[in-house]
Amino acid sequence: MTDTAQAMPDVQGSRDARNVPIDRVGVKNVRYPITLYCPRTSGQRHTVATIDMYVALPHHQKGTHMSRFLEVLNTHHDALRSDQITTVCRDIKDKLEADHAHLRMEFPYFIDKEAPVTGQPGKLDIEVVFECESNATDDFVMTLRVPATSLCPCSKEISDYGAHNQRCVMEASVRIAPGQNLWIEELFTIVEHAASTQVFSVLKRPDEKWVTERAYENPKFVEDIVRDLAVALDADDRITWYRINSENFESIHSHNAYAEIIKDKRQG
Amino acid sequence: MTDTAQAMPDVQGSRDARNVPIDRVGVKNVRYPITLYCPRTSGQRHTVATIDMYVALPHHQKGTHMSRFLEVLNTHHDALRSDQITTVCRDIKDKLEADHAHLRMEFPYFIDKEAPVTGQPGKLDIEVVFECESNATDDFVMTLRVPATSLCPCSKEISDYGAHNQRCVMEASVRIAPGQNLWIEELFTIVEHAASTQVFSVLKRPDEKWVTERAYENPKFVEDIVRDLAVALDADDRITWYRINSENFESIHSHNAYAEIIKDKRQG
Amino acid sequence: MTDTAQAMPDVQGSRDARNVPIDRVGVKNVRYPITLYCPRTSGQRHTVATIDMYVALPHHQKGTHMSRFLEVLNTHHDALRSDQITTVCRDIKDKLEADHAHLRMEFPYFIDKEAPVTGQPGKLDIEVVFECESNATDDFVMTLRVPATSLCPCSKEISDYGAHNQRCVMEASVRIAPGQNLWIEELFTIVEHAASTQVFSVLKRPDEKWVTERAYENPKFVEDIVRDLAVALDADDRITWYRINSENFESIHSHNAYAEIIKDKRQG
Amino acid sequence: MTDTAQAMPDVQGSRDARNVPIDRVGVKNVRYPITLYCPRTSGQRHTVATIDMYVALPHHQKGTHMSRFLEVLNTHHDALRSDQITTVCRDIKDKLEADHAHLRMEFPYFIDKEAPVTGQPGKLDIEVVFECESNATDDFVMTLRVPATSLCPCSKEISDYGAHNQRCVMEASVRIAPGQNLWIEELFTIVEHAASTQVFSVLKRPDEKWVTERAYENPKFVEDIVRDLAVALDADDRITWYRINSENFESIHSHNAYAEIIKDKRQG
Repeated sequence: MTDTAQAMPDVQGSRDARNVPIDRVGVKNVRYPITLYCPRTSGQRHTVATIDMYVALPHHQKGTHMSRFLEVLNTHHDALRSDQITTVCRDIKDKLEADHAHLRMEFPYFIDKEAPVTGQPGKLDIEVVFECESNATDDFVMTLRVPATSLCPCSKEISDYGAHNQRCVMEASVRIAPGQNLWIEELFTIVEHAASTQVFSVLKRPDEKWVTERAYENPKFVEDIVRDLAVALDADDRITWYRINSENFESIHSHNAYAEIIKDKRQG
Repeated sequence: MTDTAQAMPDVQGSRDARNVPIDRVGVKNVRYPITLYCPRTSGQRHTVATIDMYVALPHHQKGTHMSRFLEVLNTHHDALRSDQITTVCRDIKDKLEADHAHLRMEFPYFIDKEAPVTGQPGKLDIEVVFECESNATDDFVMTLRVPATSLCPCSKEISDYGAHNQRCVMEASVRIAPGQNLWIEELFTIVEHAASTQVFSVLKRPDEKWVTERAYENPKFVEDIVRDLAVALDADDRITWYRINSENFESIHSHNAYAEIIKDKRQG
Repeated sequence: MTDTAQAMPDVQGSRDARNVPIDRVGVKNVRYPITLYCPRTSGQRHTVATIDMYVALPHHQKGTHMSRFLEVLNTHHDALRSDQITTVCRDIKDKLEADHAHLRMEFPYFIDKEAPVTGQPGKLDIEVVFECESNATDDFVMTLRVPATSLCPCSKEISDYGAHNQRCVMEASVRIAPGQNLWIEELFTIVEHAASTQVFSVLKRPDEKWVTERAYENPKFVEDIVRDLAVALDADDRITWYRINSENFESIHSHNAYAEIIKDKRQG
Repeated sequence: MTDTAQAMPDVQGSRDARNVPIDRVGVKNVRYPITLYCPRTSGQRHTVATIDMYVALPHHQKGTHMSRFLEVLNTHHDALRSDQITTVCRDIKDKLEADHAHLRMEFPYFIDKEAPVTGQPGKLDIEVVFECESNATDDFVMTLRVPATSLCPCSKEISDYGAHNQRCVMEASVRIAPGQNLWIEELFTIVEHAASTQVFSVLKRPDEKWVTERAYENPKFVEDIVRDLAVALDADDRITWYRINSENFESIHSHNAYAEIIKDKRQG
């Protein structure tokens, strides 16, 4: 896969007769170190992203120029602002001379979280996805994958003592109203509070007692988790669209419980 | 997660006040042994599926009954006809008393393929996904993930000898016209011929010579692969909709090349 | 990768001057449908294995003949006895004319398990690994990966109500004394009873009450699980060596708790 | 999982009567941001590690104190020197009051590599593992997983034109003589040159011509790759032990070719 800026036959640039436009063509699964600037929080965060970059290819063009995707990445990676991600997508569109560009970055992100009672510092790892589509306009979707605890209301109700609980992973994808901002930490807080209780990286015994009792006081089915999350996202006017789900790694089964809701608030 | 057929409080059956309908709720990542009957081919095939089963839950109902999904599976797994998969989805809909049911089964499938020159027998493993949606009507999408070889036209053109080639995985999802059938083996044959050459499980030297030269005679960009596959699927009137892609594990990079096309033929 | 039985240059067969013997060379990640015969249980089980097959290569030989591994597999796959797996490994050794052969097969296996109270039938998926080494003698190691439930004794002790619990996966690898047999189902039963309680695929409410209370009555740290499993394996004289571990997917953290014990009983 | 520094029952600290020592117990799959200082190279590198931390537990102690592992991590992560990793392992040993500690960190690492002809800058992602064992002494093993290109000598020899080639991933684990240093970049260079040719993140057409022809001029079986790598590691006196392998993602098969060598140079 090469570029046209050379005195060699440009196979990609030649004409294609099949009359088949391609929706997306580009590079997939590129790993790259990135730096996020979050003006609102502790500023600079370093992480490693897995990146997909695509453009639309018109029916008459034989191929795209794969190396240019990486060149765009080279110019941006060391100062990527989470609130300016669409700029990178537009640069791909321009550099590849395309009408339509798509950028997807998935990376681990670390939330500074203190233990609930002792205040012990810790870092909780979540997964973040930034996804952009640029043509005449820009579309941006932010996704967070957040671990938490779910405790089964039925198990609590029917049992003389105890209740099965487990780790769950909640996923929330959102679109934001024009001119609005929603920081990773803000969405994270909304999401993790939809579960029975939160998870932490460091828990001393008073903290463990707290999370254990909190979960037992706050039983939720996987259905309750997505519904409570939906209610919270409905209440935030910055959010115009969301797709949410929770996957609960049932401690009493080898399979998982799952629930999903998609809502476009602009359609009432 | 429990069932109502007991003299115990039915927490799931209680009323929910949040007024939030749930698009999909159920069990995810269930592994199960299945038997496929393919009247057209060698009849009975045994494999192991990873299964997701969901229903829609109306806003007023607190929870679904998770154990019923597994009960439906128990009644069907040992005689699953690849041309009657929608029956299972409808049974889920009925057993869960839902308006909408979703079934997804992903499983490895083995194609009997002889080596191109010596005729040595072998089994090629592909990945198959059956996905059904049932409400008033049934929607069925079949997906195949097929490995093959891609050889780069640019590399061949500009190099004095050789050309970089690599394994690629092509994915084709299709919808079929009412009353029509498309067998796994039929779609497989269409898909694998879109690449530079096919892969085999057993290759003797005359076979290896054949595939090596065939790939070199038939160079294709990732763009060519999806376009040639699109042309082939356009030519089959049984197919009304398709989503296809190819991911090429570039032998000269640590990242992959990717192309994707989606087309609804019913919309011309 | 080719075979010598052709009128073509046999590159693999040529002499190598680097004087470097190779411990293992062969094919990796071969997917293949297999049939297990378990005389002791319900007889015939169909599943899909991921298989690695290697031989040792002496310093003077340039290459091995990759296609022969698949040919051996073709002759065995449709009647693989779990108590005769070493035969396949020896066949690889002979067919490849090697002093040393290695065979590894990993596959999902399904245990028929009834719910503890209602007796509802269900299939629990576990992971099984058969690993053989053949040179002058044969070495065979069987590994089971079994899901279960663990409930934290500390959380129970310090909390006014509830206790965090989670799915755990216990892994047990064992060697058997000459002339002895240990069936998958036998080892499975030993392993799953080392946890706080077992998991099931179908649970009605009386069953869910049973597993919830059983787990609460039987709290175990990850340390307790491996120790109780070690005690059980020590008590079975058929087992001469074991390597066991448990990984608990903590419901209060995003990381896991882990413990491991290795013991060679022949060394006292 | 809790700590003893509280006025609560210390379940972990209580006595265990089973008389079963535990080889390894601790936390697994902890994701954490780390900073590597490489005095020899461009200094500071930010990445994200997946970390396992274990200690040995004597037969008489019921449990370890899981939260302490994370506390050790908190004190080190922002200034982790690749040449002082054993310090962290010893701190775990001391903080957990254990005789034996084990630390494993796996992380993506990026090598700055210019394209071979045009000199285009690019970053190649490799996988690095640091593994330490500390008891009376410290043992350190460094592992690199490096992608490259392999081209089949047999395919080239028997074919009129072309030769099948593919991405391969070579893995090298090494132990270093006391008082010696081996930087990631140094081992990386040794490893990648064992293949038919190297891979790059950005390749313009003159570069693509170069790598294509270089691979064709330099055909290697998976056996050749590990042997050439063994010869190179034998020649470096800093290296006292190595375990190497190469997995080639055959472009003509759906399975992989694999070869492995283990050598302890101290045993001649």
